[in-house]
Amino acid sequence: MYLGSWLSRLSRGLSRPIGKTMRPIWASLSRNLALSSQRIPEFSSFVSRTNTCGELRSSHLGQEVTLCGWIQYRRQNTFLVLRDCHGLVQILIPQDESAASVRRILCEAPVESVVRVSGTVISRPPGQENPKMPTGEIEIKVKTAELLNACKKLPFEIKDFVKKTEALRLQYRYLDLRSFQMQYNLRLRSKMVMKMREYLCNLHGFVDIETPTLFKRTPGGAKEFLVPSREPGKFYSLPQSPQQFKQLLMVGGLDRYFQVARCYRDEGSRPDRQPEFTQIDIEMSFVDQTGIQRLVEGLLQYSWPDDKDPLLIPFPSMTFAEALATYGTDKPDTRFGMKIVDTSDVFRNTEMRFLRDALAKPQGTVKAMCVPQGAKYLRKEDIEYIRKSAAHHFSQEVLPIFLNAKKNWSSPFAKFIMEEERLELTRLMEIQEEDMVLLTAGDHEKACSLLGKLRLECADLLELRGVVLRDPAVFSFLWVVDFPLFLAKEERPTELESAHHPFTAPHSSDMHLLYTEPEKVRGQHYDLVLNGNEIGGGSVRIHDAQLQRYILETLLKEDVKLLSHLLQALDHGAPPHGGIALGLDRLVCLVTGAPSIRDVIAFPKSYRGHDLMSNAPDSVSAEELKPYHIHVLWPTDSEEESVSATPSKHLSS
Amino acid sequence: MYLGSWLSRLSRGLSRPIGKTMRPIWASLSRNLALSSQRIPEFSSFVSRTNTCGELRSSHLGQEVTLCGWIQYRRQNTFLVLRDCHGLVQILIPQDESAASVRRILCEAPVESVVRVSGTVISRPPGQENPKMPTGEIEIKVKTAELLNACKKLPFEIKDFVKKTEALRLQYRYLDLRSFQMQYNLRLRSKMVMKMREYLCNLHGFVDIETPTLFKRTPGGAKEFLVPSREPGKFYSLPQSPQQFKQLLMVGGLDRYFQVARCYRDEGSRPDRQPEFTQIDIEMSFVDQTGIQRLVEGLLQYSWPDDKDPLLIPFPSMTFAEALATYGTDKPDTRFGMKIVDTSDVFRNTEMRFLRDALAKPQGTVKAMCVPQGAKYLRKEDIEYIRKSAAHHFSQEVLPIFLNAKKNWSSPFAKFIMEEERLELTRLMEIQEEDMVLLTAGDHEKACSLLGKLRLECADLLELRGVVLRDPAVFSFLWVVDFPLFLAKEERPTELESAHHPFTAPHSSDMHLLYTEPEKVRGQHYDLVLNGNEIGGGSVRIHDAQLQRYILETLLKEDVKLLSHLLQALDHGAPPHGGIALGLDRLVCLVTGAPSIRDVIAFPKSYRGHDLMSNAPDSVSAEELKPYHIHVLWPTDSEEESVSATPSKHLSS
Repeated sequence: MYLGSWLSRLSRGLSRPIGKTMRPIWASLSRNLALSSQRIPEFSSFVSRTNTCGELRSSHLGQEVTLCGWIQYRRQNTFLVLRDCHGLVQILIPQDESAASVRRILCEAPVESVVRVSGTVISRPPGQENPKMPTGEIEIKVKTAELLNACKKLPFEIKDFVKKTEALRLQYRYLDLRSFQMQYNLRLRSKMVMKMREYLCNLHGFVDIETPTLFKRTPGGAKEFLVPSREPGKFYSLPQSPQQFKQLLMVGGLDRYFQVARCYRDEGSRPDRQPEFTQIDIEMSFVDQTGIQRLVEGLLQYSWPDDKDPLLIPFPSMTFAEALATYGTDKPDTRFGMKIVDTSDVFRNTEMRFLRDALAKPQGTVKAMCVPQGAKYLRKEDIEYIRKSAAHHFSQEVLPIFLNAKKNWSSPFAKFIMEEERLELTRLMEIQEEDMVLLTAGDHEKACSLLGKLRLECADLLELRGVVLRDPAVFSFLWVVDFPLFLAKEERPTELESAHHPFTAPHSSDMHLLYTEPEKVRGQHYDLVLNGNEIGGGSVRIHDAQLQRYILETLLKEDVKLLSHLLQALDHGAPPHGGIALGLDRLVCLVTGAPSIRDVIAFPKSYRGHDLMSNAPDSVSAEELKPYHIHVLWPTDSEEESVSATPSKHLSS
Repeated sequence: MYLGSWLSRLSRGLSRPIGKTMRPIWASLSRNLALSSQRIPEFSSFVSRTNTCGELRSSHLGQEVTLCGWIQYRRQNTFLVLRDCHGLVQILIPQDESAASVRRILCEAPVESVVRVSGTVISRPPGQENPKMPTGEIEIKVKTAELLNACKKLPFEIKDFVKKTEALRLQYRYLDLRSFQMQYNLRLRSKMVMKMREYLCNLHGFVDIETPTLFKRTPGGAKEFLVPSREPGKFYSLPQSPQQFKQLLMVGGLDRYFQVARCYRDEGSRPDRQPEFTQIDIEMSFVDQTGIQRLVEGLLQYSWPDDKDPLLIPFPSMTFAEALATYGTDKPDTRFGMKIVDTSDVFRNTEMRFLRDALAKPQGTVKAMCVPQGAKYLRKEDIEYIRKSAAHHFSQEVLPIFLNAKKNWSSPFAKFIMEEERLELTRLMEIQEEDMVLLTAGDHEKACSLLGKLRLECADLLELRGVVLRDPAVFSFLWVVDFPLFLAKEERPTELESAHHPFTAPHSSDMHLLYTEPEKVRGQHYDLVLNGNEIGGGSVRIHDAQLQRYILETLLKEDVKLLSHLLQALDHGAPPHGGIALGLDRLVCLVTGAPSIRDVIAFPKSYRGHDLMSNAPDSVSAEELKPYHIHVLWPTDSEEESVSATPSKHLSS
């Protein structure tokens, strides 16, 4: 449904496929192309056309025009619809003998061939106007036509009802890009970025500075691609972000830096991640957390597409602790409720063994979540699915209990719940008839995480059953703040690692804990969440060399030699500074409603990191490796197996 | 002289060090920060200052301000000059007992420490104004002060008279960036790019599209860095330009693409080249050569800095043949004359053996260049230097002959020149007394190339002797067109290679030669030259698959399998298209008058490709190489020697 359907939609009603808003698509595209409150760009300057196909209206009647475009379709050798990047226009194929050569060109050229036509803009005969098409009042009476390039047989028709696998779309990306949706996505992306630049450069004095991508490995940089140099054994690495450089720019007095930065992360195969991605990278001197937050809110409001409702700022904010307790995640989707409630006190005297046992433990809690109308809409197999999902992702102890508020709490567990517990639960959670309640017990974090996960699964299931929970036209931004500065390492829980990165400044009110109970210190880190997706994160940085050294050396046990240049820089008049990075691919993906970030990137890699069009990465001869002093260590057969056994379900390469 | 001299210049007269124009530097900086005909950016939004140091004027008198900045210098514990990215302001250190703590902070903090001060803008006492300083009428009466970060002993003072090697500057880049010149260069670069974006996106409807940098090796891509993937033996490569992608975008109907694109080229050690660099990358559909040229002229005119004379467009144009014949190069510096003249006819009957022998050969020519006032200014050692340079770079047969027009052609060769030859030469070349004439003989190309090289050396020498030839305030743009499409391979002259790249379209009037005498075909390629530097190049591309295949396979003998995706794309409705790429680093370098592109890049690599600050590239453990299935082939001792024997004169790393 998502892609390629624009052709048939064009003829039906020109409605946009994304979201639930129905708007004329070419009109929306044109509005997006023109920057708000600025002159409309000249789309036909410097080229051999006078106009674009999509811009012609009744106001052009009588004008001699030259158009270039692709043959979209042809009807009975009488009409031809010509397409360019701005829309469609109807071409009248001349029928008289004197125009035989023009007629031949227009009738014989295969669909998707490229032609140039010149002629006059005329009215369509009365009754033949197409009010649903922006150019529907006019057509072109052609005088000359030229075949610029014939199109061979296409691997797939550029039509909605021809279903294409994503692998095929990526293999023939240059054809896929002709779809309305890809054109819309890429143009919207370009426009949003341009408006961000205007906001940062022109309104707020930021300097756009390019930082190197050939850098050196950072401590713990296991996900950094390596680039062999011509010096034996020496490698550059492609950085995951310009973090060090942007801090050094602040030390260098650049004051306000931004960059639309290409970043790299080698995570092997992961769905909906790309080995290279783009972030809006920002850093400011003399700023605090609030300053960065207000800047980013202004940035998003300014660059927000005109065809969406304007953003309301400031965005709401929530502490990490609150997000976990209420939504079971650090990136809550706040478009809908279904909040988690601590019901431990309700069940202090419960007879349900599972709950009682949990509460007997020092950190034990009972958590509940009310799924509105869950009892009405969720089917038996849905419940089974949720139960299995919980069992799969969480240990037995936090398995959910389903309480069905319908028909006097008819679920099997209901009988174990005392009347006063039921009343208190109903009051506390505002349970209505036909709601469903999920109960679980365990330690706070685990129980919340489970319900947070089930909350999203229930939302998916309810929407599958027709309940509207998450309006695609609604964009719920949320700041999540007050993250812990350190986490216990998973493999060695007595050791600490940075929750985000080691340059994050501790909360000023927690400074004293740094030397006594560092695990309790909160960091001046903030995440920006949109509809349940983390789209940005940043922090106030450490500008004190001594503090930075203490955290790196004493708390994190890092090898500070690798960061000696940064520590030295902090010692030489580093200003207080902070910043943020916004994930551009994800942001544009959410704004356009695209199913994947691959749909907002011109030439994305497949799930396994392949360019299916050109076949990258590719083999390289030993001769070509010689200047880099490396050679390939071919895996043994058993290793080979494990290499090729990586999941490959998603895309066929 | 170039760098770090701004401090002393500030106190002397606030003149700009670059070029020969003398302007107040901070004023120039502020003008550049504000985009022309747009509102001035808010430089103090979102941060804990009310104003920047450099913006305060008499109009701010009486205002309470909070400023953040670096301590530039202190005078007798009475005044302190505070610096931020926008300028300097004088702070009055309070002398009264009640302000003892403020006084202590401001007097004790080392130079380059970071402080925040609050106070009132007051007039300087009569007679103490500094008219050369933009903030010279006011000073700040401080009420509170806070030391934000103390500065440890600096590796070098940020002062003019402290000479620093470039290696030291690069090692402490974060300090070097504080210099006026680096701030100016990076801000001017940011502003120029922003204006280019406005021109392309907002005025002419271009779409900013990011293309991948993890790609696959292209045919003949010997200069492409490799990036090992996690698949054994498979490598990405970092492309030298988005050439293929931008053509595919045109096939995809994106119509007008641009990108400020990061590109990569591994050329080993080369002075004034960077392993990663930036180009303004442009491609358009339905365009011809003139269209691209007019677009680029408009682009440069629009983005040209306000503190320079506006550019006159269109730029002059010259064929490759003319450039070679007249300037001996394909990138003539047209700021000065000294054109090459063919004097073969003058010397048809010469008695000079060297010339006579040359003219006896089928392709033999005699070329001459008149160096105005050369006889007056050039010294004996200069002539010797030129002669040696010629001998070093060219074979004996094109060695130059020096004719000294002073004192009746007093040079040793003069006696061999007949009176009528002398008269004809004088007429033809408009030789004046005190000029010097260089004569050489050989085939056209070699003789012109030699004189082209000597022309620049003579210009250098004349300027060394005080003659102004190349005004740094003059920017001479020039299109060079009609390049040959193919060149004979140096190592195998019977085979052809592309003069630029294999996607360049042949001249339409030379199409017939493609199948008979391909070496005579001119390409639709154009170079943009600025003051003798190539700053851009582009072409109309081949959009016909059959023609592209013929050129790749039959003429260039390339393996078309590596480009099958591109050939396929051309077969599926590729529009005619063309484009250009401008070298941003070089352009900004020329505009700012910087001695090296390293001075317009925030964190450049050294001559040998090293990051002297962080020490990239760096060693990587065998363990870290494991996921990439490679290991290091350590060179044997003899190889090692040849590796470390690469020239290392330029920078110490």
